[in-house]
Amino acid sequence: MKDLPTYTALVDSFRKLPGIGTRSAERMANAVLELRKEDALEFAEAIQNAKTKVHKCPNCGLYTEDDLCEVCKDDTRNHEICLVVVNPKDAIAFEAVSNFRGVYHVLGGLLSPAKGVGAEALNIDSLKLRIKEEGIKEIIVATSPTLEGETTALFLAKVLEPSGVSVSRLGYGLPAGSSLEYADPLTLSRALEGRRKL
Amino acid sequence: MKDLPTYTALVDSFRKLPGIGTRSAERMANAVLELRKEDALEFAEAIQNAKTKVHKCPNCGLYTEDDLCEVCKDDTRNHEICLVVVNPKDAIAFEAVSNFRGVYHVLGGLLSPAKGVGAEALNIDSLKLRIKEEGIKEIIVATSPTLEGETTALFLAKVLEPSGVSVSRLGYGLPAGSSLEYADPLTLSRALEGRRKL
Repeated sequence: MKDLPTYTALVDSFRKLPGIGTRSAERMANAVLELRKEDALEFAEAIQNAKTKVHKCPNCGLYTEDDLCEVCKDDTRNHEICLVVVNPKDAIAFEAVSNFRGVYHVLGGLLSPAKGVGAEALNIDSLKLRIKEEGIKEIIVATSPTLEGETTALFLAKVLEPSGVSVSRLGYGLPAGSSLEYADPLTLSRALEGRRKL
Repeated sequence: MKDLPTYTALVDSFRKLPGIGTRSAERMANAVLELRKEDALEFAEAIQNAKTKVHKCPNCGLYTEDDLCEVCKDDTRNHEICLVVVNPKDAIAFEAVSNFRGVYHVLGGLLSPAKGVGAEALNIDSLKLRIKEEGIKEIIVATSPTLEGETTALFLAKVLEPSGVSVSRLGYGLPAGSSLEYADPLTLSRALEGRRKL
């Protein structure tokens, strides 16, 4: 529709989101046109606020609207255990489902010679500083079990060795609720390696 | 995350869109946090404009930002053929893909005794008026081939009979690119009925 620049702009904006193609973007733009006015204005405001009020915690890199994030400020959490995540959204996922009560550190990426991402691009120096200043004793590296994720985890274990912290990674194995029948060979072999005594 | 009211508001807003569950809404809210600032502000503006600038064409019911929609204003289109659609978005779909060069009329719903939607809730009087005033000669009812869609199409054909217009509905049959193997019996029987000489 040529006389609907707003509709076209909406579709274009939705298409910038992950996993949204033209058809989905059009469906969502139509839905926005059908929203109640107050819902649409709230939506627009939330998007504006996301860029004006939300920033990264200067200590750990999580999203926050305060000076420090709620995790760094929380004295009831165990500040000696630090979960190292790649992105803030991984931390949000852990907060939503797990009972992890330590703190976080956002790495900001994964080592990738292919993409030209070296150690200097990751927040490793700030992690070393936190280990010293906050007395972190244990680091859990929460990278995905991919080539880049494992390389980064191994690299971290090596560079953090001098600090004397214990470095571990997440357990690999069968995902909860999955069926053995559909597990790929690598997952099966890792599940075997990671077997636990009953 | 308790100290991120903006994030929570964003997730809630995305969840109001069709087919978006909590996980997808969270993924999109995270993506908005990662958008470039100008993209995010454009997005917010487009949503605001959708409710402030876009309204329904007083003549046919399509979305427009002008006084009349581009279809109603367009003299190169055939104003004697009118495609009756249920929602403005159905018209957008026809505009995007088809070579239909007539005009539109938005019905605003489907007859449904179960949901208590009667003829008075649909834009039928305005359609009758347009037939008289604009000299519409042919009506194509573009409702879905569901019980409510077909009931509405039959009802329209009946009430418009006195106006002397020719009323048809969309062709039913096999969707383009589909495989006979997966077609349901009703679609097959309709494809047989709607056979065309080669």
